[in-house]
Amino acid sequence: MHEKVRINSADVKYTEKHIESRYCYHTASVRRDGDTFTVTPSSTEFIFRTERKVPRLGVMLVGWGGNNGTTVTAAVLANKLGLTWKTKTGLKKANYYGSLLESSTVCLGSSPDGEVYAPFRDLLPMVHPNDIVFDGWDISSLDLGRAMERAQVLDWSLQEKLWPHMSQLKPRPSVYIPEFIAANQEHRADNLIRGSKAEQVAQIRRDICDFREKSGVDKVLVLWTANTERFCDVIPGVNDTAENLLNSIQRGVFIGGDDFKSGQTKLKSVLVDFLVSTGIKPTSIVSYNHLGNNDGLNLSALQQFRSKEISKSNVVDDIVQSNPVLYRPREKPDHCVVIKYVPYVGDSKRAMDEYTSEIMMGGTNTMALHNTCEDSLLASPIILDLVILTELCQRITFCTQDDPVFQGFHSVLSLLSFLCKAPLVPQGAPVVNAFFRQRACIENVMRACLGLPPQNHMQLEHKMTRSFMHSEENHIHNPILMNGKIEHIKGYQNILTSHQN
Amino acid sequence: MHEKVRINSADVKYTEKHIESRYCYHTASVRRDGDTFTVTPSSTEFIFRTERKVPRLGVMLVGWGGNNGTTVTAAVLANKLGLTWKTKTGLKKANYYGSLLESSTVCLGSSPDGEVYAPFRDLLPMVHPNDIVFDGWDISSLDLGRAMERAQVLDWSLQEKLWPHMSQLKPRPSVYIPEFIAANQEHRADNLIRGSKAEQVAQIRRDICDFREKSGVDKVLVLWTANTERFCDVIPGVNDTAENLLNSIQRGVFIGGDDFKSGQTKLKSVLVDFLVSTGIKPTSIVSYNHLGNNDGLNLSALQQFRSKEISKSNVVDDIVQSNPVLYRPREKPDHCVVIKYVPYVGDSKRAMDEYTSEIMMGGTNTMALHNTCEDSLLASPIILDLVILTELCQRITFCTQDDPVFQGFHSVLSLLSFLCKAPLVPQGAPVVNAFFRQRACIENVMRACLGLPPQNHMQLEHKMTRSFMHSEENHIHNPILMNGKIEHIKGYQNILTSHQN
Amino acid sequence: MHEKVRINSADVKYTEKHIESRYCYHTASVRRDGDTFTVTPSSTEFIFRTERKVPRLGVMLVGWGGNNGTTVTAAVLANKLGLTWKTKTGLKKANYYGSLLESSTVCLGSSPDGEVYAPFRDLLPMVHPNDIVFDGWDISSLDLGRAMERAQVLDWSLQEKLWPHMSQLKPRPSVYIPEFIAANQEHRADNLIRGSKAEQVAQIRRDICDFREKSGVDKVLVLWTANTERFCDVIPGVNDTAENLLNSIQRGVFIGGDDFKSGQTKLKSVLVDFLVSTGIKPTSIVSYNHLGNNDGLNLSALQQFRSKEISKSNVVDDIVQSNPVLYRPREKPDHCVVIKYVPYVGDSKRAMDEYTSEIMMGGTNTMALHNTCEDSLLASPIILDLVILTELCQRITFCTQDDPVFQGFHSVLSLLSFLCKAPLVPQGAPVVNAFFRQRACIENVMRACLGLPPQNHMQLEHKMTRSFMHSEENHIHNPILMNGKIEHIKGYQNILTSHQN
Amino acid sequence: MHEKVRINSADVKYTEKHIESRYCYHTASVRRDGDTFTVTPSSTEFIFRTERKVPRLGVMLVGWGGNNGTTVTAAVLANKLGLTWKTKTGLKKANYYGSLLESSTVCLGSSPDGEVYAPFRDLLPMVHPNDIVFDGWDISSLDLGRAMERAQVLDWSLQEKLWPHMSQLKPRPSVYIPEFIAANQEHRADNLIRGSKAEQVAQIRRDICDFREKSGVDKVLVLWTANTERFCDVIPGVNDTAENLLNSIQRGVFIGGDDFKSGQTKLKSVLVDFLVSTGIKPTSIVSYNHLGNNDGLNLSALQQFRSKEISKSNVVDDIVQSNPVLYRPREKPDHCVVIKYVPYVGDSKRAMDEYTSEIMMGGTNTMALHNTCEDSLLASPIILDLVILTELCQRITFCTQDDPVFQGFHSVLSLLSFLCKAPLVPQGAPVVNAFFRQRACIENVMRACLGLPPQNHMQLEHKMTRSFMHSEENHIHNPILMNGKIEHIKGYQNILTSHQN
Repeated sequence: MHEKVRINSADVKYTEKHIESRYCYHTASVRRDGDTFTVTPSSTEFIFRTERKVPRLGVMLVGWGGNNGTTVTAAVLANKLGLTWKTKTGLKKANYYGSLLESSTVCLGSSPDGEVYAPFRDLLPMVHPNDIVFDGWDISSLDLGRAMERAQVLDWSLQEKLWPHMSQLKPRPSVYIPEFIAANQEHRADNLIRGSKAEQVAQIRRDICDFREKSGVDKVLVLWTANTERFCDVIPGVNDTAENLLNSIQRGVFIGGDDFKSGQTKLKSVLVDFLVSTGIKPTSIVSYNHLGNNDGLNLSALQQFRSKEISKSNVVDDIVQSNPVLYRPREKPDHCVVIKYVPYVGDSKRAMDEYTSEIMMGGTNTMALHNTCEDSLLASPIILDLVILTELCQRITFCTQDDPVFQGFHSVLSLLSFLCKAPLVPQGAPVVNAFFRQRACIENVMRACLGLPPQNHMQLEHKMTRSFMHSEENHIHNPILMNGKIEHIKGYQNILTSHQN
Repeated sequence: MHEKVRINSADVKYTEKHIESRYCYHTASVRRDGDTFTVTPSSTEFIFRTERKVPRLGVMLVGWGGNNGTTVTAAVLANKLGLTWKTKTGLKKANYYGSLLESSTVCLGSSPDGEVYAPFRDLLPMVHPNDIVFDGWDISSLDLGRAMERAQVLDWSLQEKLWPHMSQLKPRPSVYIPEFIAANQEHRADNLIRGSKAEQVAQIRRDICDFREKSGVDKVLVLWTANTERFCDVIPGVNDTAENLLNSIQRGVFIGGDDFKSGQTKLKSVLVDFLVSTGIKPTSIVSYNHLGNNDGLNLSALQQFRSKEISKSNVVDDIVQSNPVLYRPREKPDHCVVIKYVPYVGDSKRAMDEYTSEIMMGGTNTMALHNTCEDSLLASPIILDLVILTELCQRITFCTQDDPVFQGFHSVLSLLSFLCKAPLVPQGAPVVNAFFRQRACIENVMRACLGLPPQNHMQLEHKMTRSFMHSEENHIHNPILMNGKIEHIKGYQNILTSHQN
Repeated sequence: MHEKVRINSADVKYTEKHIESRYCYHTASVRRDGDTFTVTPSSTEFIFRTERKVPRLGVMLVGWGGNNGTTVTAAVLANKLGLTWKTKTGLKKANYYGSLLESSTVCLGSSPDGEVYAPFRDLLPMVHPNDIVFDGWDISSLDLGRAMERAQVLDWSLQEKLWPHMSQLKPRPSVYIPEFIAANQEHRADNLIRGSKAEQVAQIRRDICDFREKSGVDKVLVLWTANTERFCDVIPGVNDTAENLLNSIQRGVFIGGDDFKSGQTKLKSVLVDFLVSTGIKPTSIVSYNHLGNNDGLNLSALQQFRSKEISKSNVVDDIVQSNPVLYRPREKPDHCVVIKYVPYVGDSKRAMDEYTSEIMMGGTNTMALHNTCEDSLLASPIILDLVILTELCQRITFCTQDDPVFQGFHSVLSLLSFLCKAPLVPQGAPVVNAFFRQRACIENVMRACLGLPPQNHMQLEHKMTRSFMHSEENHIHNPILMNGKIEHIKGYQNILTSHQN
Repeated sequence: MHEKVRINSADVKYTEKHIESRYCYHTASVRRDGDTFTVTPSSTEFIFRTERKVPRLGVMLVGWGGNNGTTVTAAVLANKLGLTWKTKTGLKKANYYGSLLESSTVCLGSSPDGEVYAPFRDLLPMVHPNDIVFDGWDISSLDLGRAMERAQVLDWSLQEKLWPHMSQLKPRPSVYIPEFIAANQEHRADNLIRGSKAEQVAQIRRDICDFREKSGVDKVLVLWTANTERFCDVIPGVNDTAENLLNSIQRGVFIGGDDFKSGQTKLKSVLVDFLVSTGIKPTSIVSYNHLGNNDGLNLSALQQFRSKEISKSNVVDDIVQSNPVLYRPREKPDHCVVIKYVPYVGDSKRAMDEYTSEIMMGGTNTMALHNTCEDSLLASPIILDLVILTELCQRITFCTQDDPVFQGFHSVLSLLSFLCKAPLVPQGAPVVNAFFRQRACIENVMRACLGLPPQNHMQLEHKMTRSFMHSEENHIHNPILMNGKIEHIKGYQNILTSHQN
């Protein structure tokens, strides 16, 4: 067991089984009288424990033969095998671009050469995507080779290289409740579990056990990658079968949220946050989407579209509510989301957005975007992040000074908000859609597990006249105050001269 | 003296003159061996002192009669007078949209009703823009009424209301060194200080004193809002006159950086940060701009354009360098910036951008944007933020346990990075262009002045099975763990079921 | 009576009352055997008679107080009065931009100075828009001054100048059959004709007579500018009242088609025609629209939207069918039209389109457009063209050698296709949507009235080695053939050298 | 010899060698007095003779190994061999999309089933692209297989199928005059003809003869497909070698114009023509391009860019000058063209355009476009059209009644305007850039060769109350005038009711 990021601090202990950190968590309660705010800070001592042993992980996909299912499986295979393939623009190499954990970085601190960034995945011990074993169900019996071809996502020359591997993989027969997905999916349904609902659940249970035994994985995660279901409040038939189902569940269920946040919605949570954070008031947000893959076909049925529309519509609410200077209570921008099925574009989803905002003195800012998003190539790395992050969360426990019994994360795992269009949070918790706040949350929680305080972006040491670090250098390059003369000011800058009585 | 945000903490003291806070600042040093990182956290105790008395502020603009100068002056007048005006889309009201301080908010903490957001301007005692008194120089003698008309920025019906006020304001004669701006500005130059350079500087000094006396302001800031100068390394003739100039300077000069960051560049610092932060690799960034105002005319001369091109070209460098997973050392995306003078569009600057990125497995994401930015309406609130923030920084001092003599901010005020296209930082300090990191920096520095730790976005209290806050509520709404049964799971979500050996 | 364009030809006679032309009309019948075509040309001699006397024209608008009604009335008033008004971008002047007849030109032939273009309106004697007298009905009693303000279309400073005139104009009470327009229009309906349907028709009749008498106009045209009605096949209650109605109709009813073709649809008929005409195959056309005016509100009701969707959906059919090389029989591009109501954008309709086409060897061309269309400002000049063209057509009669009795145009006036989204044509006639073909049709029909053959764009006289015109000049500047040597060929061109056995 | 389109008319004779047509060409001369125009029509009788025998055509490309050269060669090979290839979106098939002659159609007339359209290529006997034999020169010695790979234009799986054929083709050594193209091309130059300029020309001559003999073609065309040369007025060294060169030239040289008109410029000539033709006034046209192929690299050198900029800048002039209602003499829209080299996008050229126009009453219409053009895939079919059209023009001769000696087209072949960005025309001839006028010109000239009058788009037979064709049907479906009653008027249309004194 050897972590790539190691903390040298009295607050962090590496036992054989755990990384254990002492952490001081700061909050504040606010009392408001008119426009006056009284802020009372407080802090809580935590101990975080992260299991160091990373299990062998199996992932079972509901809708394995779909575009997301085949793409994520193919991507992991291609990475594991180190595949390369020719295209007209040159030789390509398997990668995990678009994965927060695998392809983005975090700042650890500074060294004499400047700030040091490490891959996000190296912060804590976690599953590597190459080590995930996939299995799953599908209502279509197509093997994954042919399903990958049907998906029209990956370069053909890559498909040729993957074919021998993918065509060996065959989805297990699936439960099929026609009312839940669009009628236009009927023709795919040739691979079904027969019998009563109880029998079907029993079969699913056997499938999970079977997979675990045959593959030798330590842990199995089940993930929904099938079509958008119709909007509903309860799953009929869940209660009566839950007992059987729950017998096979040992440590609870995590719920992440709805709909992978991969394209237009993710970008919207960035742009609206940006505008509102800079004091500009978005007044109309219009989002048009079209896509031509099977998800688009499914969505072309009315009820399924409602689901999607709902999961996309609230994405700016938290941002808008956070700025009472720009928006009166209950005031919202016009917000319109349209999704259309246009077969020709296939998996190459298009987003066309228009953001209209009020700027100073009655002015208007209009941004129009055309965004070509490869639907499944953007969703697949998010699926990987979702399972790896979930698995990690299962290995983290914590306690406080007042409640010294170790506990785990709430089963509504709002840490996954980052990856979902309609994040679920425990009752009473604020919903956060803003991209950078969500990302900061994941990063800071992981830092807490290492005893590191939140990223503050302050760089105070570089803002001082006499820094507590590198102080010599600093003095040398501060000519104005050292010798009382302006020696060099670069041209055309915004010079600020101050006069004081 | 009564602040709107008041901290109730043993770490914060309100004396008659100061807000004084005790603050623990955290940093970390990193040692790298191969791909292993050893992080050593450390912390420094600070005391921050913020003067509570807000001075009466005078601002003198170089290029007062230009589009930015007239617009910012008119905006402050209209806000102070509470003006409204008719347009075809209805009655408009003066505002400060686009100002970070006046129109954006910060989260103070939580109350029983949820998170509480206050206007940024309420965090610390600072100048209100309505109270700023403007004066300035211009090479053109046009009064500000006619200059405002020439600028073609504000609605005509607003101009009619402002006319009686604006036409009373006349720019002082200005220094004019033709080599520094484009030849095409020659025809405007009818309002010049004659004499030798030394005489000109003496006149400028007298102007500043004259303004301070007549207006009765406590403090004067001088700000460059004139055209982009040609690119240069030293200002010829500065040294020989510096002595005289410095006599009138009491507490040093702050330098903020070049070029207000108002439109395309600001958005770029958001979008590239977003892409790279999500693990996507921008490979080509193409930014086309055109504008038809006098700044555009000036830029149409080659040397002036060079300046602008340089100030815009580095904006993604820090972001790219922060992700060694996506980019090899010295690898950069193709980056191309074009600015053209198109008279017809006037002050309504247009930005057309294309971002091409590599996503998973050789896929490509292409975003094309068309952004209609009202140049001066976006820059004016930033000018206000710049002077207010600078004035505030002059009233903040701090010391550390090891260096108990109070000091002020470094004269290269990198806190202003947020507002400038080409931020200046002290030698050795990292340049930060990423929008949200810059904003977090300002917010966290202000929070430090109030003894508040950095925003952490963690909301740990809502992520726990048994929270240390509101614990009753939480239990009630957590059916899964309370009674061991799944009672309601909303449809179509990404359910994660975990199985553990 | 003095026409601005006068034809000097034995084929054209100017009598006191008429312009009479002899015209030879060419057609061809085609027989197809496999992929062989036998073309048999034929020609028909016509005599065209155009009445020279232009009547005083009155126009009554159904929905006078709507955005189109108020804008077209205001535009004619402003042009008649020669109004100017101030805006932030300078002084504006009333004009008829966007009107085919008033603001576009036709080529008459060549002069020594080159080709000569005349305004379209000068081709034949026709009503000038400034001379049109407006009246109309509306379900809302708002006078036209307040209706113009509600419309939010014209600059406020122009509205101020128009106010004294517009506020004098009051719409007559209107028939209101709620089922025909959206329920959301209910609140506007305070200006209604009461009584049975027969009584209502009688009142309408009296209104028309009243207007004609009081205004002293020679002719009255009634035009629908109210909201999009719900889609329907017959107008209930038309038959039983037709007798009364028809008593006041002397010379028949012209039907032009549905929906003014002003923005996105017009552009689409250009772009698709362009692509297909150049041998490129559009495979997916996606058109998103949003608008926030009352038409948008009305369209937000489902049935009204169906109308619009139908009127927009067939616009590419004729173009696609005209190219059997690119499209198999019944093959069509994916075509999707969306219209959404977004209040904030008001009358400033936005169109966002994506055209995807197949180019050579499996390549793809993608065009994405963002088009800011001022809805009523684009529609108003088309309304003027529509009434002026219709009035002109009523003064044109013609006969052929075989049918020497003079007749008028068919009452389904397909000449108006140019101006309508869903053109109506007589049964059996081909529908033409392609913009340039429609325009050529109008131009060539008018030329026929002047005895001029169709525009041929051939310029044969400039394509000959020895031209029948200006032959001297031509020889001089044709060095290659004059002296057998290449004397000057400009650089970098595509030189074509031919070698022949 | 059997043409697919055959004319059944006394005016057309099919001799063994020729199609011979009698044709009446109409022109008009215009005299202008103030705003009055006197038009005097006239006509000229032509006899057109088109040789029926289509020769075997050889095409030699200057720059054969470039992107255009390899793509056009590969496309002809793939079409001739009937190749298909797999891609992720399915099986693709070789085609000639984008070729005016091969993939667009013309209307021949009407049949009982409606209008009849034939492929453009079937109008007159012309070379089929599949029958063209390619050869050429290149400064790089790469065989065409490797050159095709370097070009990164065609799908990789297609390249694999073409490889055995393409790799057999090797460009002949080329003349290389470094001053004419950018210095950055130096590294490619490994395949050069050595010796004096006279020796080089002699070698070129031998190459042409060698190709003709070995390939057995009847005719050879030489076409420039190499990089944009620097702008220049004369080709140095042309005169002294012209004698030798001209010995091999039998029937003169056709000059077509500069720069294939494939993407943004072509679309611009459509859009501006559309706007101006509809009475809307473009006031600012901004065109940004970037590309990353070798042409882009070459253009990144300043002088080469000048050429391109000039060839693109005049494209709207003729359209603007044709409308003196919208534009005063010498008034032009702001027009700005930018081309940038952005390696990443390769041959996938991007165009970003903004068209701003004035509409009625001071309103503004703004169109923003993002256009992804595959540079070489759009240019290659135009290259084919260019050579096929040129070859056809060489077989057409004509005479007039006054000049009965048969002559050919002017050596400045303005018919090729359609295909070139900077069309060349004989001195004194008007330049036409408008797309649809250019296309009409080619079509009508070809129709003249068949004795057919110009397309008139009038469909008069469908506009009459009593048509001279199908008159029975027409009466039946014209209820209004038949029985004096309105029987059915479809809902919501723009009804025009006329009243006449």
